[in-house]
Amino acid sequence: MSWTISAELIPGLARGAAVLGTGGGGDPYIGALLAAQALREHGDVTVVTLDEVPDDALVLTVAMMGAPTVMVEKLPSLTEVVAPVHALSASLGRPVTHIACAEVGGVNSTIPIAAAAALGLPLIDADGMGRAFPELQMVLPTLYGIDASPLAFSDEKGNTGVLTTVDNSWTERIARVACVEMGCSVMISGFPMSGAQAREALVADSLSLCREIGDGIEAARAEKADPVERTVQLLGGRELFSGKVVDVERATTTGFARGRVRIDGVDASLELSFQNEHLMAALDGVTLVTTPDLIMVLEHDSGEPITTEGLRYGQRVRVISAPSDDRWHSPAALAMVGPGYFGYEVPSHRFDGTAETPAPDAPEVAA
Amino acid sequence: MSWTISAELIPGLARGAAVLGTGGGGDPYIGALLAAQALREHGDVTVVTLDEVPDDALVLTVAMMGAPTVMVEKLPSLTEVVAPVHALSASLGRPVTHIACAEVGGVNSTIPIAAAAALGLPLIDADGMGRAFPELQMVLPTLYGIDASPLAFSDEKGNTGVLTTVDNSWTERIARVACVEMGCSVMISGFPMSGAQAREALVADSLSLCREIGDGIEAARAEKADPVERTVQLLGGRELFSGKVVDVERATTTGFARGRVRIDGVDASLELSFQNEHLMAALDGVTLVTTPDLIMVLEHDSGEPITTEGLRYGQRVRVISAPSDDRWHSPAALAMVGPGYFGYEVPSHRFDGTAETPAPDAPEVAA
Repeated sequence: MSWTISAELIPGLARGAAVLGTGGGGDPYIGALLAAQALREHGDVTVVTLDEVPDDALVLTVAMMGAPTVMVEKLPSLTEVVAPVHALSASLGRPVTHIACAEVGGVNSTIPIAAAAALGLPLIDADGMGRAFPELQMVLPTLYGIDASPLAFSDEKGNTGVLTTVDNSWTERIARVACVEMGCSVMISGFPMSGAQAREALVADSLSLCREIGDGIEAARAEKADPVERTVQLLGGRELFSGKVVDVERATTTGFARGRVRIDGVDASLELSFQNEHLMAALDGVTLVTTPDLIMVLEHDSGEPITTEGLRYGQRVRVISAPSDDRWHSPAALAMVGPGYFGYEVPSHRFDGTAETPAPDAPEVAA
Repeated sequence: MSWTISAELIPGLARGAAVLGTGGGGDPYIGALLAAQALREHGDVTVVTLDEVPDDALVLTVAMMGAPTVMVEKLPSLTEVVAPVHALSASLGRPVTHIACAEVGGVNSTIPIAAAAALGLPLIDADGMGRAFPELQMVLPTLYGIDASPLAFSDEKGNTGVLTTVDNSWTERIARVACVEMGCSVMISGFPMSGAQAREALVADSLSLCREIGDGIEAARAEKADPVERTVQLLGGRELFSGKVVDVERATTTGFARGRVRIDGVDASLELSFQNEHLMAALDGVTLVTTPDLIMVLEHDSGEPITTEGLRYGQRVRVISAPSDDRWHSPAALAMVGPGYFGYEVPSHRFDGTAETPAPDAPEVAA
């Protein structure tokens, strides 16, 4: 059933999105500011469920691409947010009917709200990942054979490009170098798909889940309960570790924020490796959990999600983990987003710590 | 008056274009092969003079962008040559009426012949420079306020992009990083202009001049005369130096072939600095001639032009120089293509050796 996003829902939704964003997707407050502004200027946004989208709809994703470390410095204007949608719609020669989120996480759950408001279009209660990942081809639609391109990108100066590529990895490669040249942060719109395709390929109800998580954290605080515990229960996950941030190593290279954070507990040490998002957690050198399952850092008492670029020495944090959409565990999906793709030479470890044996027909998955 | 390019005109035209290309624009024989193939498959190409182009024509330039060192390895197919024209025409929503050369030199005088043949369109006897330059904004149309974008680029894999940028330097920047990512060589089509704009901004009759140069070299050889001397006379230039190539330093970086060549004569040494094209000639450390005037390396006896990527130890060569189109000597033009832009801290030196005093209103020209 459809619902409405008004300005007062934004903070909870942005907080929940930042949890599912596993550290990436950019600063949720930047996106929340922009979404609130768009709702004030253009009115509330109607959110429709996947089964309400007509088969012949023209759905586009809208997202910010780049290093979150840069995004936080460059709040886009509404003009900039809708520019790639207009460019892509003109290129397709058809009006867009629905906006969807490519991922959940930080700005990339709230920017589509701003876009939908400014364009006067409904937003779909769904996204392409059920989490955040650093590269644009890393969405379930890629696994369903849906093309990322034509895909449009725009910067704050007024430069725009529309790409048509032979596969989604090439869309990522060309858009990424353009993004880096244009200042490490651009708005993109792509993955044109029908309602039928969206229904098959997207993760359903993810905006509703963001709301639930955000509201749950708020409610737990009000009830003097434990917001972290509440989030873990809601996601069917588990708490991995509790401690203090003692070391953060971070570099913005080739358009990504890459790094490692060390968290010291009472008698052990947890290391998280990230590329925009947290991709691997290791306890005293032993792998605990890896991508594609979710690894999230929350502030110790308030349960507030901390993005990778928000990590600071001395923060008291808890690290939790939760299962990803199950489709991310197919051999093809693991080849695309498993630890091997990111250069970590370990098998994928699920949120509960079990290592996945690569299927015999998936030799490209790092063992 | 219009004339016709048939396959037998290609070798002379390509040779003349390689002379005016001042070492850049890629291997002329690669482009000649492709143009000859296109003429065989699609018939001869009509060449029209600038004053024959209707005011309301839609003129596009077609060129290969990238490092000539890579271009020589990757002969594009005709499908690849016309791909950016189709992409740009679709984006503009109007049929293209005329093809023009962005520059003269190497492949970039012959590729447009191939494009015109394959598209069944007339080619204009003109180009955007009257020589070759390494970056795409370095054309006279930029000085007349004509936008490079929308500009389309395509690679041999089937990837295409259409850029719309705030100025021509941004077109270059974004297209260049895409080009590098796509393998250091792409086909581009851009600078959409009317016939009236083309008449104002292009260098007239440059294809005819290429023919004259190429035919002149051939005729001089047949008459046992000096082909180098013949070329110098035709261009109103002078011979700078005669000697043997003793050192070539060349690197393909950020999409360009950059380097230096040393030529030793009887009792002196000439050094040429290039970035795709020859940009500066210095005799025993003293600047002789710089961009924008033309510096060309010809084989000692045959007068055959040698491109920068064709330079080899031991070649006996003569270096000649000739005046560029006079519009390249305005303060704005010198700021765009003078030696200072390329990092050479010398004033521009004309082909006859006189140094140009920068105009007082042009502080951006390196002194």
